[in-house]
Amino acid sequence: MRIGIIGAGQLGRMLALAGYPLGQRFVFLDHSADAPGGQVGQIICGEFGDRERLAELASRVDILTYDVENVPAEAVEEVARAKPFQPPPAALAAGQDRLHEKRLFERLGIPTPEFRTVDDRMQLDFASAAVGLPAVLKTRRLGYDGRGQHVLRTTADIDVAWNKLGGVPLILEQFVPFEREVSIIGVRSTTGEVAHYPLTENTHADGILVRSRAPCDAPPLEHTARDYLERILRHFDYAGVLTLELFVAGGRLLANEIAPRVHNSGHWTIEGAITSQFENHVRAILGLPLGDTRPLGHSAMLNIIGTMPKLERVLRVRGAHYHDYGKSPRPGRKLGHVTVVAPTPEQRDAALEELAACLA
Amino acid sequence: MRIGIIGAGQLGRMLALAGYPLGQRFVFLDHSADAPGGQVGQIICGEFGDRERLAELASRVDILTYDVENVPAEAVEEVARAKPFQPPPAALAAGQDRLHEKRLFERLGIPTPEFRTVDDRMQLDFASAAVGLPAVLKTRRLGYDGRGQHVLRTTADIDVAWNKLGGVPLILEQFVPFEREVSIIGVRSTTGEVAHYPLTENTHADGILVRSRAPCDAPPLEHTARDYLERILRHFDYAGVLTLELFVAGGRLLANEIAPRVHNSGHWTIEGAITSQFENHVRAILGLPLGDTRPLGHSAMLNIIGTMPKLERVLRVRGAHYHDYGKSPRPGRKLGHVTVVAPTPEQRDAALEELAACLA
Repeated sequence: MRIGIIGAGQLGRMLALAGYPLGQRFVFLDHSADAPGGQVGQIICGEFGDRERLAELASRVDILTYDVENVPAEAVEEVARAKPFQPPPAALAAGQDRLHEKRLFERLGIPTPEFRTVDDRMQLDFASAAVGLPAVLKTRRLGYDGRGQHVLRTTADIDVAWNKLGGVPLILEQFVPFEREVSIIGVRSTTGEVAHYPLTENTHADGILVRSRAPCDAPPLEHTARDYLERILRHFDYAGVLTLELFVAGGRLLANEIAPRVHNSGHWTIEGAITSQFENHVRAILGLPLGDTRPLGHSAMLNIIGTMPKLERVLRVRGAHYHDYGKSPRPGRKLGHVTVVAPTPEQRDAALEELAACLA
Repeated sequence: MRIGIIGAGQLGRMLALAGYPLGQRFVFLDHSADAPGGQVGQIICGEFGDRERLAELASRVDILTYDVENVPAEAVEEVARAKPFQPPPAALAAGQDRLHEKRLFERLGIPTPEFRTVDDRMQLDFASAAVGLPAVLKTRRLGYDGRGQHVLRTTADIDVAWNKLGGVPLILEQFVPFEREVSIIGVRSTTGEVAHYPLTENTHADGILVRSRAPCDAPPLEHTARDYLERILRHFDYAGVLTLELFVAGGRLLANEIAPRVHNSGHWTIEGAITSQFENHVRAILGLPLGDTRPLGHSAMLNIIGTMPKLERVLRVRGAHYHDYGKSPRPGRKLGHVTVVAPTPEQRDAALEELAACLA
């Protein structure tokens, strides 16, 4: 089969690297001819919402998927009428708007931090009073990697936040003093078969994922997270990989957001699970049997952000797996990641410290 | 770095799939624009010995390597003067001629079956008497996957064999009533660092590799095989992956042949070892630290020959890893392979039987 991927970033590249052994071929749509996917497939150059380019992509493949979330939902709905498109456009649309996402959690009975919609300055005052401070003001759309967010600690921050973000639809969320941030990655095939990876613990800095460790060894939480995830998968009659990010606060899970696609916190599955999230996404959208998601040990993933480390130094760390996306360095840009898999959590963490020193 | 690969077969494709995460880029030279490497890199179309095309490939990359052995050695020596080329052309040349190969084994003190060179009909009589029957008459050059061979069981077979193969330089080898066929895959970096994978047990049918299992759990044999392999690596000041195929006869190792490249009997290392032979080949030729070669369990690999099985059926076998090279089916052609990795040899062999049923 020929698979068309909207977006040719590192996620697209990793989907293709996992999909070629299954006998699949890949074509991408991206605004940049230099995007990582271009290393392993042809890129049709165009904006994600360009209907002509989307139609061209659709005409050259058997099924469409995406590696980015900021694909205009209307353009996708149009192309999805002409060609199989997975995950479903409705899931993509829900993930694009924090308000819809939160309401979805409520509808499905998934606990989520308190929130209020904020469309004008006065609503922000009401919302702050209702949600309580500290709180986080976020743009409803196009926020990722910590962009489009401002933390309100005291009422004095309200004006600052409004001046920074006001003018677009916003949402005010309760600031959760979480103990841990975790994610659960699940996959559902067009046949309805479902599988999930172990719960992963994530660390962010400035809103960008820095490191993930899995399995994070919290069986009752994992059981609950899995239940939440499956509600979302069933709700959308979903096919593909879906990620649910959650806070652990007071020992309880609160859903933060969904990513209706393969996810940075699942990169460790390439070497750390029997079947990677990328291969399982491909299997799922094609209706193939899902691959075994069991972990192969204790894994950790470190993102490479802004500047590339010296390759020789990283590869000298025993068992380190290096992933250079081939992107030009830029402050705050995800350029690659490194994974270690070890027989015990202690050995994993020791290797992780060694790796962190290489990236410092 | 840009790596030029002479040959764009499945081995070239797997080298590229392993090399992209290390941040490397790939260009191929192949006579077929449809060759598997073309899925993941550009193919320059031309014969392997075409000096102009080789020069074009060299001009577009930083270092050259190959995925086929039948590259004319003289053409390679020429291009290797202009651009780094690994493994060394001398190793490629030695692997192309069964006589040179056997003499190399003798020179390095590596036991090998009795042999005699055969250039005319009369020499074949002398050789048969000296080596004894049964024996195998082989063309010295361009034999692979069992082609260019004829078994002599009685003196009556001598004429038949001569009529089939006579006219090109030949070698008569003692027929070894082996208990097992094994291979050892090693890798040496341009820095001199050496690593090796566990001994692998191989099964052939009609001269074509059908299945491999590793580790094959024969520590004293592995120790000896490793010693032989390292003699060859040092002899050539080798960089890259090298495979030594051996017979186990009377509990003793006899070298059969070398393959100065990544090898079919090492495909299990993609999922079954911490670092695959493909990644280690790339690391080695670039002088990077070698990756950990330890196995992750008990692996088996089955070749898919002639016709593709039903993908759904194979993927339903728990833990099966599928590799479809994207080649058109043809009797006797290697179209793909399947690997299973299990915690015990028994579980591995059970999965293997399940897989074999899918391919039957």
